[in-house]
Amino acid sequence: MEIVTIDDIKFDVNGLIPAIVQDAETNEVVMLAYMDSEALRFTLQAEEIYFWSRSRKELWHKGETSGNIQQVVEVRVDCDADALLILVIPAGPACHTGEQTCFHRTLKERNK
Amino acid sequence: MEIVTIDDIKFDVNGLIPAIVQDAETNEVVMLAYMDSEALRFTLQAEEIYFWSRSRKELWHKGETSGNIQQVVEVRVDCDADALLILVIPAGPACHTGEQTCFHRTLKERNK
Repeated sequence: MEIVTIDDIKFDVNGLIPAIVQDAETNEVVMLAYMDSEALRFTLQAEEIYFWSRSRKELWHKGETSGNIQQVVEVRVDCDADALLILVIPAGPACHTGEQTCFHRTLKERNK
Repeated sequence: MEIVTIDDIKFDVNGLIPAIVQDAETNEVVMLAYMDSEALRFTLQAEEIYFWSRSRKELWHKGETSGNIQQVVEVRVDCDADALLILVIPAGPACHTGEQTCFHRTLKERNK
C-alpha cells in the first residue's frame, strides 16, 4: 500500500479534514468527525484518536471524558487526500448516546 | 432502528452533508463525498448514489461515466444528523484509479 505523509494532506478552508472512524475488528463505521493538523499529529503520535471539536472549538481527545478511547490501528487517506479513514480498536461505544455507533438511525423518504 | 426523514438532516453552511459509502457485502469503506438536498433526494428515490460534485459544481450520478453505479441498500444518519453512512452494492471499483476503494493509501509520520 502506498504511503503518504501529513504534508500530503489537504485540509479544507477551515483547516479541517473529515475523519471516518471504523472498528478494525467488526468493520462497523462508528463515527465521523474532523481533525485539524494538530489533532492529526496527536493522533499519529499517541496512536489514539484526537479531533478538533467544531462546537467547542478545541482539541478533543476522544474518550477523555467517557473513557471510550479509540486506539489507532491504521490511518488511510483517500485518492484526493481530503478525507481520512481510521481503523481503531474502541474501548467502548463511540456515541454519546451509548450506542456502539453514531450511525444508529435510518433515513427514509417521507410518506413511504 | 429509529427512522428519520430528510427534514431532520442538517446540511452545512454550503448546503452539503458528507456521505460515507460502505460496501454492504464486504463492509469496506469505499469513498466519502458530499450531497446537497437534491442529490440526497435523488439517492433516496433512485436507490442509486448521487453526489454534489464540489469541483465541477454539479449533480453527479456516481458511475454515470464509469458504469460503476452504487446501488443503495440503506441510508444511515448519525446522532447529530450531520453525516450520512450509505450501504451500497457497487457495480465496480469506487475509485477513478481503478482501486476498489478510494482509501488505498496509508498515512505515516515523517521519519518513522
